[in-house]
Amino acid sequence: MTDYGSAITDNRLRITDYRIVCLAGGVGGAKLAAGLAQIVPPQNLTIIVNTGDDFQHVGLTVCPDLDTVMYTLAGVANPETGWGRAGESWRTMQTVTQLGGPDWFRLGDLDLATHLTRAQLLGEGQTLTAVTRHLCTHLHIQPVILPMSDQPAPTMIESDDGRILPFQTWFVRERWQPSVRQIILPADVKATHAVVRALETADIVIIAPSNPFVSIDPILNVYPIRALLEDMPQVVTAVSPIIGGQAVKGPAAKMMQEMGMEVSATAVAAYYGDLVDLFIYDRQDEGTFVGAGGTAVALDTMMLDGDGRLRVAQDVLHTSLNYLNA
Amino acid sequence: MTDYGSAITDNRLRITDYRIVCLAGGVGGAKLAAGLAQIVPPQNLTIIVNTGDDFQHVGLTVCPDLDTVMYTLAGVANPETGWGRAGESWRTMQTVTQLGGPDWFRLGDLDLATHLTRAQLLGEGQTLTAVTRHLCTHLHIQPVILPMSDQPAPTMIESDDGRILPFQTWFVRERWQPSVRQIILPADVKATHAVVRALETADIVIIAPSNPFVSIDPILNVYPIRALLEDMPQVVTAVSPIIGGQAVKGPAAKMMQEMGMEVSATAVAAYYGDLVDLFIYDRQDEGTFVGAGGTAVALDTMMLDGDGRLRVAQDVLHTSLNYLNA
Repeated sequence: MTDYGSAITDNRLRITDYRIVCLAGGVGGAKLAAGLAQIVPPQNLTIIVNTGDDFQHVGLTVCPDLDTVMYTLAGVANPETGWGRAGESWRTMQTVTQLGGPDWFRLGDLDLATHLTRAQLLGEGQTLTAVTRHLCTHLHIQPVILPMSDQPAPTMIESDDGRILPFQTWFVRERWQPSVRQIILPADVKATHAVVRALETADIVIIAPSNPFVSIDPILNVYPIRALLEDMPQVVTAVSPIIGGQAVKGPAAKMMQEMGMEVSATAVAAYYGDLVDLFIYDRQDEGTFVGAGGTAVALDTMMLDGDGRLRVAQDVLHTSLNYLNA
Repeated sequence: MTDYGSAITDNRLRITDYRIVCLAGGVGGAKLAAGLAQIVPPQNLTIIVNTGDDFQHVGLTVCPDLDTVMYTLAGVANPETGWGRAGESWRTMQTVTQLGGPDWFRLGDLDLATHLTRAQLLGEGQTLTAVTRHLCTHLHIQPVILPMSDQPAPTMIESDDGRILPFQTWFVRERWQPSVRQIILPADVKATHAVVRALETADIVIIAPSNPFVSIDPILNVYPIRALLEDMPQVVTAVSPIIGGQAVKGPAAKMMQEMGMEVSATAVAAYYGDLVDLFIYDRQDEGTFVGAGGTAVALDTMMLDGDGRLRVAQDVLHTSLNYLNA
């Protein structure tokens, strides 16, 4: 295995010539996307976001991953929670509780404005893609953020007691505690023209360190995204969400265990298989990582702060570029 | 004309034996309903509320008159505005403005909780009647508040420039400035069983001092409310919303003018005509009021504060009772 990582030189200027697409779920995807946005000119950066988590709640269409990516790129995300907005307040939800309404999914006063604006525009017949563009414009976000599809594409979780739960019911309401027997993705969901065009013209596609099963698979499941990834870009790079045998955040490790997989970067690399040209895992796993045919590179992938995001984005881009030019 | 008003004696105990139904729009209706709620045992008081103002906004079903009546009876209404809740804040709507969403209809942080809870319950398939009962329970409201129908029954305003506007567009967005050519009420709207039962068993029906054209007519237009009022109760009492040639609040006087009517309690009495057994107008109009067949009584009908509401409710009830027992 060639260590492209160690061959990195300062070639930032060249990176700006490439069209980059990032496939992202929530927190991990948003952090990497925010790092990329600091390096890649906005017209060359598209983030395609999982909408399998989206659901109807209190009359509104809530898009947790889109919102996390938007808030993070806009610099208004709550850094402590990983979701929602900084400086959030809870006056409306406290009153919903008093009125006997549902309060298991926490919608802050600031966050609610996003869902209300989205509901209005969707109600006027706009697509989710157009609504997301509207919100990004008003949040002063320059790179393009695209929902993977304009169709509803709900991810369902089958728990080992046989229940089939909408994703947010499992994830938030039941605090991802029920063991996962399988993840059920919808058939016949189509990507938007904007998504197809972005992938067709991409030089580098980066699969963010998001949950492979409930963040990335829902995107790959949207026709024809998987096929486009197999055919089009010069390099598909995936970043492992598993570091040192643990998920940085969320249920990825627990899910792997429950689905009978080893919890390791090695298992993630095997899971992505041939789809990925370049697999990036954390230096913590250098001792144990076993590649399987493709190219793998160990980097420091933890994104603990803004500097971390920028560093990981730079390293991932440069490694991808070195792969391209090798 | 007999002056039943002057024959009032203290017969409060007897009032508690009668089943009272109040037909109400927003502010004026809510005030009288709140006064009635202080006298009439809750199991004997039903308030049937106009839902012709209801509309879909930012994904939610907003019911302005129902909410004004609920908030007023719950003691949480904003006494200055006549709509919305006391101690309201505007954090979400300010953020909607920043996001380029619609902000012409002001939804406070507390008020929003009502609409979100309603949206959730309607989305689960509950009727507006059931949702209103749920909200009243959680607002600790004891009398029964009923929407006039569970069907949408939008009131439309045709302005004299030929536009046909949804009520709230005309009323709030255009600040009731476009002149009214006519009011268009929907055909084939049916009352709920609860509304029919309340009217069938009512002893006294009180038409609150709400706007006759856009608050009361929409209720009477719901089948078979008008027919039930003609047939069933022992007395139908209406209270004039026009005092001294002016509307206490809102566009009633302006509408009367634009529709070619005299702006007076006399004109309101003539408009209700035979539907009403007992017409109550303000003492300010004693010099000019001209009755037309039915019984009319002058009372002090201004409800400037809680004492005013209680006094008007008592006087209206006692006058109705005297009419019954005459």
